[in-house]
Amino acid sequence: MASPTRFNLTEHSPTFWRVTFDNPPVNLVDGAFTDELNELFSRAEGEDVSVVVFDSADPEFYLAHYDLSAKDELDHVLAHPEEVHPYTALLTRITKLPFATISSIRGIARGAGSEFLLDTDMRFASREKAVIGQFEIGISAIAGGGPATRLPGLVGRGRTFEILYGGLDMDGARAESYGYVNRSFPDDELDGFVDELASRISSFVLQTIRDIKHFVNVATLRPDAEFKDQMDAFWAAVNRPAQQHVAERLFDAGLQQRGDVERDLPQWVTRFQYSPDSEQD
Amino acid sequence: MASPTRFNLTEHSPTFWRVTFDNPPVNLVDGAFTDELNELFSRAEGEDVSVVVFDSADPEFYLAHYDLSAKDELDHVLAHPEEVHPYTALLTRITKLPFATISSIRGIARGAGSEFLLDTDMRFASREKAVIGQFEIGISAIAGGGPATRLPGLVGRGRTFEILYGGLDMDGARAESYGYVNRSFPDDELDGFVDELASRISSFVLQTIRDIKHFVNVATLRPDAEFKDQMDAFWAAVNRPAQQHVAERLFDAGLQQRGDVERDLPQWVTRFQYSPDSEQD
Amino acid sequence: MASPTRFNLTEHSPTFWRVTFDNPPVNLVDGAFTDELNELFSRAEGEDVSVVVFDSADPEFYLAHYDLSAKDELDHVLAHPEEVHPYTALLTRITKLPFATISSIRGIARGAGSEFLLDTDMRFASREKAVIGQFEIGISAIAGGGPATRLPGLVGRGRTFEILYGGLDMDGARAESYGYVNRSFPDDELDGFVDELASRISSFVLQTIRDIKHFVNVATLRPDAEFKDQMDAFWAAVNRPAQQHVAERLFDAGLQQRGDVERDLPQWVTRFQYSPDSEQD
Repeated sequence: MASPTRFNLTEHSPTFWRVTFDNPPVNLVDGAFTDELNELFSRAEGEDVSVVVFDSADPEFYLAHYDLSAKDELDHVLAHPEEVHPYTALLTRITKLPFATISSIRGIARGAGSEFLLDTDMRFASREKAVIGQFEIGISAIAGGGPATRLPGLVGRGRTFEILYGGLDMDGARAESYGYVNRSFPDDELDGFVDELASRISSFVLQTIRDIKHFVNVATLRPDAEFKDQMDAFWAAVNRPAQQHVAERLFDAGLQQRGDVERDLPQWVTRFQYSPDSEQD
Repeated sequence: MASPTRFNLTEHSPTFWRVTFDNPPVNLVDGAFTDELNELFSRAEGEDVSVVVFDSADPEFYLAHYDLSAKDELDHVLAHPEEVHPYTALLTRITKLPFATISSIRGIARGAGSEFLLDTDMRFASREKAVIGQFEIGISAIAGGGPATRLPGLVGRGRTFEILYGGLDMDGARAESYGYVNRSFPDDELDGFVDELASRISSFVLQTIRDIKHFVNVATLRPDAEFKDQMDAFWAAVNRPAQQHVAERLFDAGLQQRGDVERDLPQWVTRFQYSPDSEQD
Repeated sequence: MASPTRFNLTEHSPTFWRVTFDNPPVNLVDGAFTDELNELFSRAEGEDVSVVVFDSADPEFYLAHYDLSAKDELDHVLAHPEEVHPYTALLTRITKLPFATISSIRGIARGAGSEFLLDTDMRFASREKAVIGQFEIGISAIAGGGPATRLPGLVGRGRTFEILYGGLDMDGARAESYGYVNRSFPDDELDGFVDELASRISSFVLQTIRDIKHFVNVATLRPDAEFKDQMDAFWAAVNRPAQQHVAERLFDAGLQQRGDVERDLPQWVTRFQYSPDSEQD
């Protein structure tokens, strides 16, 4: 396949691969990210890979969020309501991949970044340096990638509401106590733990991994339609003045650049909330 | 609406309301509580409220339990098996309200009080002063308001059995570790946290709150019929000698009065368990 | 009934029974274990028992795992694909018994031992001396007794994958933090806690226990078919060279004997993983 532009691939062995996100300045999720991962997954399926780890080359950003600058993407989505959005298709595909998937989280994983890690099989986080959350309510939109469906099975209904209504960040320790991630580790122990676990899994027979994935999926996966509906609701929100009001002001302040807005997004959104008289600001 | 008799309403802003339970001596749940909350919810829906917090004017009692003294209520229930009990209807309505709901728990919340908080979207508790549980097995009845259905999605099947079979109290710290509540706080930090979170949520666009509620409900709510069945089983139990045996003795000892029986109800019930020769006691 | 050979029965009272596993050298699960428990359960149902506690006479082994030495069992299973395996039938029966069930866990509970405790209503563990896990991936087989179905409702989807893919042990403290068990206790407090809880439950009216079991089951049990499919997948794995390769070498090293292999099984399996050129080893 063509060399990916959004991540690096390391093949530790024929059965243990690592995808390292590397898309400066803040590791945004976008269409190219989606396409390149789909291509990688097809290759991994063909080569009987057992386990893929996802980490980041940038210690400050795991995956910042979805690229909100693509105006033509909104036009396309609104013109094709019957289509499943490619990121939704990627996320539901991840849950069904015929190998084990592990998110190793250091830095900021908000919005689509959180949705990504929620759809891998397992999540391990730096206790101090992981920053996880669904900030979308702050830009007047429901999260599109399905956390309303995925989170309850990990953290329960009550904590799901707290995460989605509050739109705040969570560090690794709280994410562990909520079940948002499997475990958190002191930052300097994270990589060692993940590598040892992935290496161990990759030594086992692939058929067992596939059987486990199959039966856990039977017991836990929700209908794909729930994910399409949430992504459609996200884009409907993006098409409303309230979202555009906040997003424009955030872009003016530095959204999607390396700086304070991305670092403290849940605080920045509160400066620009929409109200009937906001347009006169 | 007529002035409520079971709680006070504070409108912090047009979008952030607070209901403070205030029904001495121990904040019992009863028909008037149910009617008054229904009326309040209808008004809140009409005025586009974003978030409602539920707390208590009494630091010792959040909501003690359902009023067990109403004999004519039992007669009515038995004569109308087709009806959904008003408290069941209120609880299922709470889970579907088009705004965010938060229980801020200090003091005793047993039985119907626990069922109430389980049906709000989020629960925050005083670490030291919250006392939460389902004591009903101690009066020879299944809990009627549906915790057998709600608890598994928060605490898992095993801890649900422990809570319902044991009929014991839980403090805020354990409730947090089980997921019975979202978080617990040192008592003097609870109000500040809840107010800040509610205020933040109330600043966001209401449509987003409604979208979140909708999609989390799609993924988590169980059929309404499960709740009717449990409430019917509760009243069937109330109609049996074993329940009446314990309840009569508890009333004689001080049930529904401010005192030791209400404070230590899970211990008091053990004094009066029914057995074939109990009637000769 | 004939005297059981795999456990001892203690009738603390007419309503509170204890089953103490006692099947040296390591408390294997096998056909006799299954038959004897079925017989005991039928008797307990007839005598209106309220609660049964399951503990072990051997502080090092709770239930080691399923007896892997029975070659004729594999032949029978393969010849009768329509049959539900007796251990699967036992496990699903346990979840529906008309009384409360409690696992009190000290020592090693792997594989079928873990599956057993997952199907009792409640689980309490020695913090230091409980060793719980599903090691089966290490012998190139999916766990047969349904943990892919049971675990998600206790520990969530992500931790389920970690437990099943990793095949590692967990102590009581981690099992509690994951929700694999209800609670863990310092070893010298476990028995006292369990006895007091069981005694309390046994003092309550049996109808209430049955109502609770019924409604929690309505809200939590998965279709029986999922369990048959997993057990069939286990035996299919046992019939493959990869499983036989590992199992033969483990037996040579001391599997099912009291010793290092059973104590450190998750480490021992890594020595014997199958690969295309393993047969030349």
